[in-house]
Amino acid sequence: MKNDHQYEAVAENGLLHRRHLLKLGLGSMGALATHQVVGAESGLLIPDWSKQPGPGPSEYGARSAFENNTRRMAANPNPLYPGGGSSRTPLQFLQGTITPNSLHFERHHAGVPAINPAIHKLVIHGLVRQPLVFNYEDLLAYPLVSRIHFLECSGNSGALFRDELVNGSAQSLHGLLSCAEWTGVPLVTLLEEAGVLPEATWVSAVGADAASMGRSIPIGKALDDVMVALYQNGEPIRPEQGYPMRLFCPGWEGNTSVKWLTQLKLTDAPSQFRDETSKYTDTRPDRMSLQFTFPMGVKSVITSPSGLMQLNRQGLYQITGLAWSGSGAIRKVEISADGGATWADAELQSEALPKALLRFRLPWRWLGQEAVLISRATDTAGNVQPMRQTIVSARGDISTYHYHGTQSWSVAANGTVSNTYV
Amino acid sequence: MKNDHQYEAVAENGLLHRRHLLKLGLGSMGALATHQVVGAESGLLIPDWSKQPGPGPSEYGARSAFENNTRRMAANPNPLYPGGGSSRTPLQFLQGTITPNSLHFERHHAGVPAINPAIHKLVIHGLVRQPLVFNYEDLLAYPLVSRIHFLECSGNSGALFRDELVNGSAQSLHGLLSCAEWTGVPLVTLLEEAGVLPEATWVSAVGADAASMGRSIPIGKALDDVMVALYQNGEPIRPEQGYPMRLFCPGWEGNTSVKWLTQLKLTDAPSQFRDETSKYTDTRPDRMSLQFTFPMGVKSVITSPSGLMQLNRQGLYQITGLAWSGSGAIRKVEISADGGATWADAELQSEALPKALLRFRLPWRWLGQEAVLISRATDTAGNVQPMRQTIVSARGDISTYHYHGTQSWSVAANGTVSNTYV
Repeated sequence: MKNDHQYEAVAENGLLHRRHLLKLGLGSMGALATHQVVGAESGLLIPDWSKQPGPGPSEYGARSAFENNTRRMAANPNPLYPGGGSSRTPLQFLQGTITPNSLHFERHHAGVPAINPAIHKLVIHGLVRQPLVFNYEDLLAYPLVSRIHFLECSGNSGALFRDELVNGSAQSLHGLLSCAEWTGVPLVTLLEEAGVLPEATWVSAVGADAASMGRSIPIGKALDDVMVALYQNGEPIRPEQGYPMRLFCPGWEGNTSVKWLTQLKLTDAPSQFRDETSKYTDTRPDRMSLQFTFPMGVKSVITSPSGLMQLNRQGLYQITGLAWSGSGAIRKVEISADGGATWADAELQSEALPKALLRFRLPWRWLGQEAVLISRATDTAGNVQPMRQTIVSARGDISTYHYHGTQSWSVAANGTVSNTYV
Repeated sequence: MKNDHQYEAVAENGLLHRRHLLKLGLGSMGALATHQVVGAESGLLIPDWSKQPGPGPSEYGARSAFENNTRRMAANPNPLYPGGGSSRTPLQFLQGTITPNSLHFERHHAGVPAINPAIHKLVIHGLVRQPLVFNYEDLLAYPLVSRIHFLECSGNSGALFRDELVNGSAQSLHGLLSCAEWTGVPLVTLLEEAGVLPEATWVSAVGADAASMGRSIPIGKALDDVMVALYQNGEPIRPEQGYPMRLFCPGWEGNTSVKWLTQLKLTDAPSQFRDETSKYTDTRPDRMSLQFTFPMGVKSVITSPSGLMQLNRQGLYQITGLAWSGSGAIRKVEISADGGATWADAELQSEALPKALLRFRLPWRWLGQEAVLISRATDTAGNVQPMRQTIVSARGDISTYHYHGTQSWSVAANGTVSNTYV
């Protein structure tokens, strides 16, 4: 029997060193080991599926039937608002950083238009030397750029502003968050071709959906890393993501990445679209509202263990989750298992790409003790994710958008995991 | 009218500077412009889909009906070989670097087993201190790593060894190639737990399919970057990719990444499985065969314009394609439009990640001239992709596997694109 030195604690309440596990020898962990130590023979019984050939290759693949219950949580809460609503990514059942396109979150203001790309047009007009109109095919002749970026709705995690605790899951509380490889034409290329006049300071983007979803983008961002995205994870963008083209504003609140993009108007002031006055503003305690909070704050969430899960054995777990920032890459993620009293650095499991999801993890020994799990991210610009109480104190509890404080998950002695405030 | 200085040639026959286009002003290109320069009004007619709400959010997304014809090319050529065969990724219709899971290539030796993950087992035995058997759930408690890597069948592009030209597409000639984010348990973790005995020099991996697909992996690779992969692009690996678990050997020929992994046996010699004697060897002109050619060579292919395409207008095109190497990241891709006489550096469109696909592009002016388009990649280890005639001279024309020479596409004056040898 190995001694307890193997369990190199890095913080209180069971957090273990992120690298040490590689030499830990789980096989010697006794009650902590989840697998069997046995003669090899018992594992070598031949199952039925090894005894006869299965179906051959196919033209378009599908998931295992054992995984079909992993679905977006779709809601269209208002019958007077046809096509409105959202669907949320099942974060707690995914791993890595890329979201499969079929599970990428949605947020629609008037549903998904069925656009024929042969007819759809993109117009650039307003304060330009030469208005231009592009067909879909036209855009394919332009230089493309491919980048992996997260997309997050500014309303994501908004329930955490409320005093009343919602007993939700990672999906229901934080699932307006996904990540994909986006490929598109740099907007600067199209704007330079139209010729931006010196007095143009904003670009007003409008979608072809029945809501005419519109957002105003400052010219500085538009000339920086914004693209007219045509492909997502290799394939043409799906209808629910803006087929055949959407604006994509890396790191900014999701609704600025206007879907079904049909119009870009250069202006000398924001257009004050409905979607930037009645929505997506941050109401302060004095009832004044802040407009144009664009970059999403540095943030993280533990996706497992997470709300509504049930730990059904004692032993070793991997705490795992996602971290991201609209201001750069993630530099560090800390994890606490005791409600924030002590912290340890998590292992960064994936490449730290700018404005992309990063996967983190840390081994955790759960022996039936009560615990409160929290993660806290720091980005390359030095921004640190605030604790929930800090952001609620600053912003008040009537705010809805741009919550990027911490998420705390309570683990009860019986293994139940639930949302909590510390 | 701007002068011809705008077209900064970087090589003969129409290749333009990769960066210069950003300031080229396509709108002033006259006959080269593909879009319309018009008053904005004509683009602002309201299409039907903007006039009424569409369907709301859903639990699981799908592609646009306009894109449903993009499918894998599936073949099961031998009726005596049930479940055998392959399906090929439609490279010419994709962009960026990630392959959607539904379009990832397949190669099966006895079809796709329908594995129940609750019953499936992974055994580690042979030259270890303690044989171990793992359930699927057991593995989820281990530390995971997430990496973006290409996967290529060693038979990919094999037709180019033949004297006789095949009039194929990027898909049919090179479509046994895909790229995904793979998440799994580092194999070193599991091997260290079982305790590798000093005399163990190989790991023999066997799948649970009816072919009992097996490959021997040298211990050095097994302790380096091999993983037992559980997730692909965020979701559990699909059945056709090895659900619930596959070996994944970054950069190595695809068949070493044994699907439906059920057995890892530590040995002091390769196991000489059928799949490493009768297949996946490189037969030389003297009829001797080389065994165990593991890392895939540095390689690239232009995916557009590519075989079976038809250029239907004169003007500006983006030559675009993919480059990869089993020995590191891609450092440089060169493109020729005149059959290899002159070359220009392509723009690297995506992040250059190790052992991953990289997307490249270069603007090209086609005014009806005949052209032969070729790409040539160099990796960070300094390896340069060989011209076809070099690899055929060295390997002979009875070889089948590990072709990584150049692909030349001929563009005829009528715009037809076809496979050619230079």
